[in-house]
Amino acid sequence: MTEAPSSAAPWREPLARARHAHDKAGLEDYLQLATIRPDGTPANRTVVFRGFLEHPDRLLCAADTRSEKVEQLHRNPAVELCWYFPRSREQFRVRGTATVIEAGHPDAAMLVTRDTVWLGLSGSVRVQFAWPDPGGLREDPAVFDIPAPAKASPPAEFCLIVVEPERVDHLQLRPFPHERHVYERDGAGVWAVTAVNP
Amino acid sequence: MTEAPSSAAPWREPLARARHAHDKAGLEDYLQLATIRPDGTPANRTVVFRGFLEHPDRLLCAADTRSEKVEQLHRNPAVELCWYFPRSREQFRVRGTATVIEAGHPDAAMLVTRDTVWLGLSGSVRVQFAWPDPGGLREDPAVFDIPAPAKASPPAEFCLIVVEPERVDHLQLRPFPHERHVYERDGAGVWAVTAVNP
Repeated sequence: MTEAPSSAAPWREPLARARHAHDKAGLEDYLQLATIRPDGTPANRTVVFRGFLEHPDRLLCAADTRSEKVEQLHRNPAVELCWYFPRSREQFRVRGTATVIEAGHPDAAMLVTRDTVWLGLSGSVRVQFAWPDPGGLREDPAVFDIPAPAKASPPAEFCLIVVEPERVDHLQLRPFPHERHVYERDGAGVWAVTAVNP
Repeated sequence: MTEAPSSAAPWREPLARARHAHDKAGLEDYLQLATIRPDGTPANRTVVFRGFLEHPDRLLCAADTRSEKVEQLHRNPAVELCWYFPRSREQFRVRGTATVIEAGHPDAAMLVTRDTVWLGLSGSVRVQFAWPDPGGLREDPAVFDIPAPAKASPPAEFCLIVVEPERVDHLQLRPFPHERHVYERDGAGVWAVTAVNP
């Protein structure tokens, strides 16, 4: 179990417990990212959690720069993640702001994080960044039968989505009545928690 | 297995197969609903699928009229549902428009559907509509220890969310390269499907 650091935000510990309860089933890292389309309607898709950054607590996902979600985040960085854990019947809703880290980003530390996440990806994930344009008319299967880009350096198509949470809503459906806690971060970065009705 | 009617939209059959592959695990009916908050940011939460309406194909969920999602849908009916199936590694993204069916709705047939969905709910779900205001400061556990509202007639707090899809994006991660099909409905209600790059 990857425990939350003792200095971490208070919602990290219940989230670590929920993920741990799902890691044997391989269900711990799938969550849904909602964003805003250019026409103002909501978009929603599954993403894979790729780890935390600390001080402040942020969540990492990988993305293709050619994907609609990256285009949407460049225009509007507001997001809500929804992470449902079916075995423990609990949900974390993470509201916040996303930053896209692409090649050439001015923050050198973030580029190191981008390299590190890339290094951790399997070949079958890395190869997808060399596939034809996502969402374009389906090309011949042979076009996809190519080697994965090397581990040494991520291609320009690879980027990180870094979500900085402002509010986390934790709902537990197993207790009856259900439990619900809302964590909110103030301007100084301090988290407060409130018990609310489910 | 609940098969899709032969006259149903073409995405209904692959969705029925995915749900069937998850029903023994109890994972077939949980999906994520993205909406727009009054401040323009996205909201995202897990909802429970409660069945289909036919002609045209629409998806049903139950909701509490006091919940933020119902308030959001009254202001802006645009939604995207994201339905991820972990065992078969496939995802359906359903973009469309939601209608809220509350007591007193002018369409009598929709009120019958509301009664029918209410009848199918367990007591532990029905009682939640009599609990204190969702999201309010947590009240004493004793306040929640009340009988469930009767099956005979739904309380005013109970409503349906009816989603009418315009576009369904079906991604299959098990084949390699992955498969992706986009279904779109034209103005006459006819669905067309296009194979696109994953």
